[in-house]
Amino acid sequence: MSGKLYGVGLGPGDPELMTLKAHRLIAGAQVIAYPSLEGGESFARSIAAEFIPQDCAEVAISIPMSVARKPAQDAYDTGAADIAAHLDAGRNVVVLCEGDPFFYGSFMYLFSRLADRYPTEVVPGVTSVTACAAALGRPLAARNEVLTIIPGPMAEDEMRDRIGAAEAVAIIKVGRHLAKIRRVLQSLGHEADAGYIERASLPMQKVLPLAEAPDEAPYFSMILMMKGHDPWL
Amino acid sequence: MSGKLYGVGLGPGDPELMTLKAHRLIAGAQVIAYPSLEGGESFARSIAAEFIPQDCAEVAISIPMSVARKPAQDAYDTGAADIAAHLDAGRNVVVLCEGDPFFYGSFMYLFSRLADRYPTEVVPGVTSVTACAAALGRPLAARNEVLTIIPGPMAEDEMRDRIGAAEAVAIIKVGRHLAKIRRVLQSLGHEADAGYIERASLPMQKVLPLAEAPDEAPYFSMILMMKGHDPWL
Repeated sequence: MSGKLYGVGLGPGDPELMTLKAHRLIAGAQVIAYPSLEGGESFARSIAAEFIPQDCAEVAISIPMSVARKPAQDAYDTGAADIAAHLDAGRNVVVLCEGDPFFYGSFMYLFSRLADRYPTEVVPGVTSVTACAAALGRPLAARNEVLTIIPGPMAEDEMRDRIGAAEAVAIIKVGRHLAKIRRVLQSLGHEADAGYIERASLPMQKVLPLAEAPDEAPYFSMILMMKGHDPWL
Repeated sequence: MSGKLYGVGLGPGDPELMTLKAHRLIAGAQVIAYPSLEGGESFARSIAAEFIPQDCAEVAISIPMSVARKPAQDAYDTGAADIAAHLDAGRNVVVLCEGDPFFYGSFMYLFSRLADRYPTEVVPGVTSVTACAAALGRPLAARNEVLTIIPGPMAEDEMRDRIGAAEAVAIIKVGRHLAKIRRVLQSLGHEADAGYIERASLPMQKVLPLAEAPDEAPYFSMILMMKGHDPWL
């Protein structure tokens, strides 16, 4: 009988924001797997580190830093094969996922390669979006508002149209797109409605009005904007 | 010294989907508070029930079932005053919130009444949106897709426009709006891309292609739709 594949959301970074279920699965894991950048650090593993059993086998999926998709897809092919070998041997595999596995997560690349062959369960996690709203001290969306999640790499004109038509907006994957996003919000007259959050829930968390945000933002940063609410920063 | 107010997200319903932090705060609580419908059951309390200390004081905020806003606002006034009395006496108060406190949550009504007067912390939780994606076995949003969260009560024409312009969509608060939402998705040719989820993560969870969804949906139901993905139901 084959093992079971678990895609486990770990939340935004504070280990205490993982779920009881994630904690139980990790603390009892025979095999864990996680992505790491070029064989270096894995943010997902660092969130779970204190709960990983000492005798647990580890599958590190080394993702090359490249804009080309082929090298990353090859890495997921290799990672999926390593995971499949454990599953075939009857061992469960817990894949560690930052945030939530199905919310802009790389777990989908393993899911698409394995879920049709092995019993698979996805354990949802706290997303960075609600963690950022908590850090900001401001509701993300209320009552019958529409909430739009926009990735930072979007082209400037499209972003202006999308945000112009939106009510509450979370812009994720800000990173090197911060200057562009700021221009868009300024041109729409909404810079003062926007807050900037960096590394939500981690010790080095930063929360600032967008106008005071640094010019260089790390990948794990976000901008939340709610139109027409009371002033809130 | 006054106590501290905590707004604590409990996740979508399975008690194991609460965070370690929520669990710690509830298990150590002197005072908990939660909304209940007309003084009856509280879904939030039921999620946390097994972890609530026996000697814990409880503030049940009885929300009248009425479309008028004044009676509910009066109830939150009363609840906020009861909570403030505990905070003034130096006791921390843990407010139990379904899902995430700042994601379409009623906690905002207490936050707006109390957060400027008392130290306040919001603990994010797993939202029903990612729990529904996990139940469906389908990524909610990937790569650079835009994700739009639309409340079910939206007028039909506006809903058609919004979904027509969207990529990945989560329609929340489905309930009695199911027939309308189905019409909208049919008219856009996207019924087959949509999944229906009821009571995600609870023992009575239901997951169905939208075409097979019942005509009557409970309040805690959701429709997820992703355009242009591979077939997935």
